Amino acid sequence: MHVQYTWLFGWFGEERERDVKINVICPATETHIRKYTKQSQVVVRETPELYREVVSAYIAAFPPSRTQWVENILNGLSEQSKILYSDKAFLILPDMKWDLKTISSLYLVAIVQDRSIRSLRDLQKSHLPLLNAIRTRAIGVASDKWGVGEDSLRLYVHYQPSYYHFHVHVVNANYEGGILGMMVGQAHLLDDIISLLETDASEGDGVLQRMTLTYSLGSHHALLREIQKHKGKST
Amino acid sequence: MHVQYTWLFGWFGEERERDVKINVICPATETHIRKYTKQSQVVVRETPELYREVVSAYIAAFPPSRTQWVENILNGLSEQSKILYSDKAFLILPDMKWDLKTISSLYLVAIVQDRSIRSLRDLQKSHLPLLNAIRTRAIGVASDKWGVGEDSLRLYVHYQPSYYHFHVHVVNANYEGGILGMMVGQAHLLDDIISLLETDASEGDGVLQRMTLTYSLGSHHALLREIQKHKGKST
Repeated sequence: MHVQYTWLFGWFGEERERDVKINVICPATETHIRKYTKQSQVVVRETPELYREVVSAYIAAFPPSRTQWVENILNGLSEQSKILYSDKAFLILPDMKWDLKTISSLYLVAIVQDRSIRSLRDLQKSHLPLLNAIRTRAIGVASDKWGVGEDSLRLYVHYQPSYYHFHVHVVNANYEGGILGMMVGQAHLLDDIISLLETDASEGDGVLQRMTLTYSLGSHHALLREIQKHKGKST
Repeated sequence: MHVQYTWLFGWFGEERERDVKINVICPATETHIRKYTKQSQVVVRETPELYREVVSAYIAAFPPSRTQWVENILNGLSEQSKILYSDKAFLILPDMKWDLKTISSLYLVAIVQDRSIRSLRDLQKSHLPLLNAIRTRAIGVASDKWGVGEDSLRLYVHYQPSYYHFHVHVVNANYEGGILGMMVGQAHLLDDIISLLETDASEGDGVLQRMTLTYSLGSHHALLREIQKHKGKST
């Protein structure tokens, strides 16, 4: 069944900015319900070992049905009229959450074609040309179409992301909705990632493979259960 | 004149959680007013060169009167009854914003004695024992006194900070107030900093001296004016 996303605006009075935005997801899966249910946050310190032993298997087992919509966009089967930029390496389109009108909440997403980059953890020095190209093109699109330049844009990557196909969020720096997605630990600035890779002096594994990454997961997150099971085994 | 900080709670009905918290700062300086006035955010990419040429001078010229309150705490002249942990290297006390009761908004701060660490930019591998000790003690205090363990704590550092004397924020991972202070770019997880320093393979300048740091400043921030003046000169 095809999941539909839409939104509605509401006003509590006339001649004013809208007061509420209601997001509708139908039919909502268990995963959607978990994602939007208030959960307590549990902080995880993901060492390279924990990534290898638990997280990479979780990512490999991620149901392809949950990223089919990304495949459809990348393969030209859906959302084609919305695409703002496209080349062999990646494409840029408005995020589902953005209404394409309210500049202060401008929200685009860049999705790469290379399926081998599942997340931040896979990024290496060799990806620098791709990351720099995304940066340049995303700023170009936001600037040309909406007059929002690089001084007003925050570009970032989620870890853990909601789907394991590398993508970059491109958001007005003044946007204050959905701020949880911009929280330290959950969000990593593309500029910081580029700088870390550029200045990485190591041979072999890169900085993003060697680092311990710290982030929080909702207490009902499926990955958290796997991590806790693993901890139970090893202690 | 001594600045007073206090807060008040308000209820819109009986037998319920409080609805509002009002922070009072008196007398409020121009800097306080700027800090709490809504400003548009301007994204700055601080290269090592920009740090050397502009930011370090801004930090050096920061009025000592604005950190006198920190000196008073470190030298045992004020807030001594509030101190939760203290040794030769640093002390831990509740943040001014925390009421010491509401566990879900637990907020402590660790302040180091070493005045040579002005900010994140000064941190090197040699500071790892200090950073690890802060981590261990802060988690110990929050856990022993309030039952909030390391799985429920976010420890982070601001860049730019509001005062240039190295300190670490220790906050309940479920805290959602003042979320701007936890935003990617403004906040850097202590765990990430420790991991970056531990895995840094370079000789000479460390990763935090080599990196470009990206963050936003309010459009009225004094540092932003200096940066824009410098850019005007060099183009």
